[in-house]
Parts: sequence; C-alpha cells; structure tokens
Amino acid sequence: MDDRIGQALAAAIAAGDQVRGTTSPNPPVGAAIISAAGELVGVGGTQPAGGAHAEIMALAAAGERTRGGVAVVTLEPCNHRGRTGPCSHALVEAGIRQVHYVHSDPNAQAAGGAEYLRDHGVEVVQLSTTVPALKSWLSALRLGRPHVTLKFAQTLDGFTAASDGSSQWITGEHSRRDVHRDRLHRDAIIIGTGTALADNPSLTARLDEATPPERQPRRVVIGTRDLSGYAENLHRLGFEQYPEISVAMAALWDKGDRDILVEGGAGLASGFIEEGVVDTVRAYLAPMLLGDGRGILSRAVGQTLVDAARFHLDDVSRLGEDVLLEFSRKD
Amino acid sequence: MDDRIGQALAAAIAAGDQVRGTTSPNPPVGAAIISAAGELVGVGGTQPAGGAHAEIMALAAAGERTRGGVAVVTLEPCNHRGRTGPCSHALVEAGIRQVHYVHSDPNAQAAGGAEYLRDHGVEVVQLSTTVPALKSWLSALRLGRPHVTLKFAQTLDGFTAASDGSSQWITGEHSRRDVHRDRLHRDAIIIGTGTALADNPSLTARLDEATPPERQPRRVVIGTRDLSGYAENLHRLGFEQYPEISVAMAALWDKGDRDILVEGGAGLASGFIEEGVVDTVRAYLAPMLLGDGRGILSRAVGQTLVDAARFHLDDVSRLGEDVLLEFSRKD
Ligand SMILES: NC(=O)c1ccc[n+]([C@@H]2O[C@H](COP(=O)([O-])OP(=O)(O)OC[C@H]3O[C@@H](n4cnc5c(N)ncnc54)[C@H](OP(=O)(O)O)[C@@H]3O)[C@@H](O)[C@H]2O)c1
Ligand SMILES: NC(=O)c1ccc[n+]([C@@H]2O[C@H](COP(=O)([O-])OP(=O)(O)OC[C@H]3O[C@@H](n4cnc5c(N)ncnc54)[C@H](OP(=O)(O)O)[C@@H]3O)[C@@H](O)[C@H]2O)c1
Repeated sequence: MDDRIGQALAAAIAAGDQVRGTTSPNPPVGAAIISAAGELVGVGGTQPAGGAHAEIMALAAAGERTRGGVAVVTLEPCNHRGRTGPCSHALVEAGIRQVHYVHSDPNAQAAGGAEYLRDHGVEVVQLSTTVPALKSWLSALRLGRPHVTLKFAQTLDGFTAASDGSSQWITGEHSRRDVHRDRLHRDAIIIGTGTALADNPSLTARLDEATPPERQPRRVVIGTRDLSGYAENLHRLGFEQYPEISVAMAALWDKGDRDILVEGGAGLASGFIEEGVVDTVRAYLAPMLLGDGRGILSRAVGQTLVDAARFHLDDVSRLGEDVLLEFSRKD
Repeated sequence: MDDRIGQALAAAIAAGDQVRGTTSPNPPVGAAIISAAGELVGVGGTQPAGGAHAEIMALAAAGERTRGGVAVVTLEPCNHRGRTGPCSHALVEAGIRQVHYVHSDPNAQAAGGAEYLRDHGVEVVQLSTTVPALKSWLSALRLGRPHVTLKFAQTLDGFTAASDGSSQWITGEHSRRDVHRDRLHRDAIIIGTGTALADNPSLTARLDEATPPERQPRRVVIGTRDLSGYAENLHRLGFEQYPEISVAMAALWDKGDRDILVEGGAGLASGFIEEGVVDTVRAYLAPMLLGDGRGILSRAVGQTLVDAARFHLDDVSRLGEDVLLEFSRKD
C-alpha cells in the first residue's frame, strides 16, 4: 500500500471511530479523499441516520479538489437510494478516478457499489485489513440481530461484589473511565430488573461529571417485574422495558440498534449465555481476591467441564492496576 | 552502560536464570568475565550448595585471561568463607580491575564484598537494573521465610473445577507446559491433604513425558490427615508432610528452601491468604465461563469489599488461548 493511501486509510478509520454509537442502523464508516495532486483534502464520517454517509461528507470537505482524486473508505460505497443518494454515484459525479475500500457491504440492498464504480471507469481496490469500528455492525448484519457485548467488573476470583453486596470500586479509575467511554459507543445499555430494583442505576456514559455527552445510549431493562416506585434515575432519564431477552433483541433490532451492551446482573448475564447470543465478553479484572461473594453468573452453565461456555481471547490490555480481557464467541 | 558491559550482563543474567531452582539456600547468581582485550571470556552460574559460586565458575572458564579484566555479576560478590572461599578474594587474586554488580547482598554474613574489592584497588560499579532470577531469593532473605508463590488454573469466572469436580484441561497446552517449566525452578511444591487424598498427584516437573528432569522440587503436603493407603504417587516418589502452614514454612526454611510454590487446593490457598504470606500470585486464566463449580479459595477473605486480599499487577502474558496474570503482594 503506498504511503498516501495508508495515511488516508488511517484518517478514514479514525473518522469512523469517532462516529461509533451515533449512526445505527447505519454503519460507522469513515472516508478520506486524496486530490489529484496527492494531498489529503477531505475526511468524513457517517452522520446520524437520515444524514449524509461518510463519502458524501469527505467529498463535501474536499470541494473542487475531488476531480481525478482517490477515495479511501472503510466500507464498500453503497449503491442504493435510501434516505440519501447512492455514494457510488456521488463518487463518479465528483470525478474520483480510484476507490480503495476495506470491508465489502454485506447488506444485499446496499451492495453493488464496487461494481457500479468499475462500470463507470473508476479503478476499485479492496484493502486487506480490518476496521474495529465496523466489527459489531458487520457481526449484527451477519447474525440478523444486534451484536451483544457482555461486560463484567470482577475480582481475579470472579466476584462482582462481596458477600454483603458491597461492590463500589472493585476496579480502579482507569477501568471506570473506560466503561463510560465504551458505553458512549453503544446503541443500548441493558440490565435486568434485579439490578434496576437494587441499584437505582443511571446507565449513562459520564465522561466527566460536569458535562454528560449529549447523545446517550438507549437504557433498557429486561424482566417482568414492575419498576414503579423504584429505579428513580431510570424513570427520570427514560428507559424501555422488555419481558425477556428474545423480545428485547427483536425490538431493539427493529429500532435500529446494532451494538448493545449487557451490564448485568448475574441473572441476566446467565440468561444471555444460555441463549447463546453473547458475541463479545469484556472483563475488567481487578487485582484482588474475595474468596466468596456474588459471582459473574447466577447459575452453572453445566455440571461438567465440557459444558463450559468457551470463548476466543482477542485482546488483553492493562488499565492501571486492572486488566481488560476481551473475548469473542467461538464459532 | 557500554556495549560490552551490557552484553556481559545479559550473559550473566542468562547464566543465573539457568541455575534457578538448583542453588538454594544460595542465590541463583550469574557472572561473566571480559578480558583486558575486551572479549567475553568466561560465563558461569552458581553451583548446587557446597559447590562453586558464579564468579568462581566464570573465572575458571576465563582461565589466564582474567588479568586486567572486568567482571559483571548479578549479585554483589560474597566476602565470607563458607563452604567455598570468598569470591571477593578470588576476583582480586585473578587480577580483575573492575567489577560491575546489580543487587547488593542483603545477607549480613556475606556482605562487604564491594568494600573489600575497593580496598584492594578494584573499581566497583553498581548497575541499576533488576535480575528476575534473584527476585524470590532477595524477598526470602528480607522476610526471613521462603518466598511463597500461589498458583491457580482457573476459568474467567474463578473456578478451578466444574460442579462435578471435572477439571482436566481447563487451561490449554501452553499453560500446562509453562506450569511444568515453572515447577522446575522452585525449591518445593506444596499441596493440602485434601488434594493429596483426592487427586493422587505426582507433583513433578515434566517437561516431556519421556525424560523427567533429574532434579525435582521437594514434594510437600500440609495438613494433619493420614495419607497411608492414599496418594500412591507421592508415597512412591517421596514427600514430606507438615501439620500446618507455619510449621512447614519454618521447616522448609531450615532445609534451605527459599522459593516455594503452593498449588492448592482451595482450602490450603485460603490458609496461605489468611496467614498473609502470599508474595506472588500466578493465575492461569482460561477463556471460559462455568457459572458455578469449585472456587479458587474455599472461604471468604472477609464479608465486605475492604477486606479483599489486594495485589499489585506485575505482568500479563498470553499463553495460547489463556492468559497468565502475575501479581505481587502490596506492601
Ligand atoms: N458489581 C457489578 O458489576 C454489578 C452489575 C450489575 C448488577 N449487580 C448486582 O446484581 C444484583 C442483581 O442481580 P440479579 O441477578 O438479581 O438481577 P439481574 O440479573 O439484573 O436481573 C435478573 C432478572 O432479569 C430478568 N430476566 C429476563 N430474562 C432472563 C433470563 N433469561 N435469565 C435470567 N433473568 C432474566 C428476570 O426478571 P423478572 O424476574 O423481573 O422477570 C430476572 O429476575 C444487584 O444486587 C446488583 O447490585 C452488580
Ligand atoms: N483444578 C485445580 O487446579 C486444583 C488444584 C488443586 C486441588 N484441586 C482440588 O481441590 C480439592 C481439594 O481441595 P481442599 O480445599 O479440600 O484441599 P486442600 O486445600 O488441598 O487441603 C486442605 C487441607 O489443608 C490442610 N491445611 C493446613 N493448614 C491449613 C489452613 N491454614 N487452612 C486450610 N487448610 C489447611 C488441612 O488438612 P487437614 O484437614 O488434614 O489438617 C485442610 O483440610 C480436590 O478435589 C482437588 O482436586 C484442584
């Protein structure tokens, strides 16, 4: 890959990253334009649903300097007229002579962009790399349901709270900040009625106490128990309740959610594991041993070792004194 | 640090690493000699107790080429006549003009080597780095008891076995090989009577099935129950039994053990945590969730979160699909 393409790709990936959590049901795509003179002249990311796609934003930023230029996009340009015009057409009209893209569009309705471009004399190159910001969206499209991330904050020996229920600050400041950053990029945050009743949670992404970000993920509670008179913060901030996991998954998909985060408690986490719909596990592990307390799951996955829910280890990172372990489903 | 010193230091550190687990009660030291012409002419490691120290081995390897040379040693050369002569004297007699060493000798009896060398016209330099092979020995000397490492092979949610007791191959092949490599470098491997009765363990370091290494760590069982008629492998291979932790620690110290490994089960692990003598934790974490089963510890460390046993995270490494997390005591 030549240096200028590499640089434009990095800019496109960063632009896509920045819009994660704001684009569903559309994918958080990033695009960058290199002018005929070889300069990076425009970068853009997908706007919220109904708004412009990344390519359109990048072309607009480049203005007149698109003629004879090169576009680098994290996803194959779309080819259908939804609420916005097809990006493939816009690229041709702007005089782009070459398009590099990373992932193919798995969406039958939107695909065909690469073919349209080729048919209109544009050179098309697929880059072999992966775009982390698109991971959940691609997975959701493949599965036909939202991508599910299950999150735990736990001790080394697998407890989320001591026997008396105390759990504040198991993990340290770095981990807690990471949790809030992560929430910001999700379409929905989900808990069970048990946690809603016990903890009066807010389920907001708070990056600093003073200024909460404007856009917040959808707050979702799963379970049949009536929350009237409880969970005051959720009542104040607004939330949705669904009686069970499958109902919630279908409703959230219909509302456009593609990337959802399950934050507990142990009962609901066991439910998600049992339904076999956990795609990613994010475990924030604190350097301590409790010996006893509340476990990550509320029930045995099985009586014997072969029944264990197995994952693939994707990533390990240190967050202060804690470790963040990321796993993905094994299939 | 000049390049030649750096190279000699690396050779000395490697030589010390190689003799780990064979030198107690002496430290696993490494030494290297650079000739007056600037060549690395001798490398050596501490021999088993009663044998030569690292400096003597390195001087012997260098032969005539020690005159006007430089010695690089991982620990301050000893200054006392134990079963071998003082290394400080040997270095002076060999005509060494400069000595670089890393750790000071905390052993009052052996210390004073640097001073003796200076008094005899040798230039002495202390290098600021740390030598992993000496970590346990230095800690043991400071504490006046063996350095204790507690080891677990666990699921992400903190179980060492499923509810039915099945535990074979929780962790993968890479982890299991690492456990055997690690055992080889310890002075003793310790289990409780519960594990001895239930598992008929061998407690040997098996690097490959065919050829067990000659030197094996001491096999130790802690607890009062009589093992007659059980634990056939231990009876065949030989083991020592002590009624409780403090008795075992004192006896092992007297026998010269400085670096001991506690492998379980949960009852004995809880005992070591409660006595506050766990210096290092090595947790081999497998990418699976069991929901229920046998925990790492058998008892709560306390009822509330502030009672948790807290550690400092030292190191994280991937072993195939598993993660090895290393923690040290917080003090
Ligand atoms: N330390 C932490 O990180 C952390 C995080 C979250 C929660 N917690 C603690 O966990 C406790 C709550 O745990 P919990 O297990 O009682 O509550 P929970 O997991 O939040 O909620 C359990 C409820 O989820 C509903 N549900 C729907 N489908 C389910 C399924 N397939 N399987 C299981 N549940 C399903 C049921 O609601 P209905 O019975 O209403 O139908 C069930 O009672 C609280 O004390 C909270 O503080 C700790
Ligand atoms: N999966 C794994 O990695 C793994 C590893 C090891 C063991 N295990 C399993 O763990 C089970 C055994 O666990 P366990 O807890 O029963 O046995 P254990 O921890 O091996 O032994 C417990 C015994 O240690 C003795 N002990 C001495 N001082 C102690 C103290 N301060 N605190 C606690 N115990 C002390 C007591 O012996 P007396 O009662 O005789 O006085 C006590 O009963 C076995 O089934 C084994 O398979 C699994």
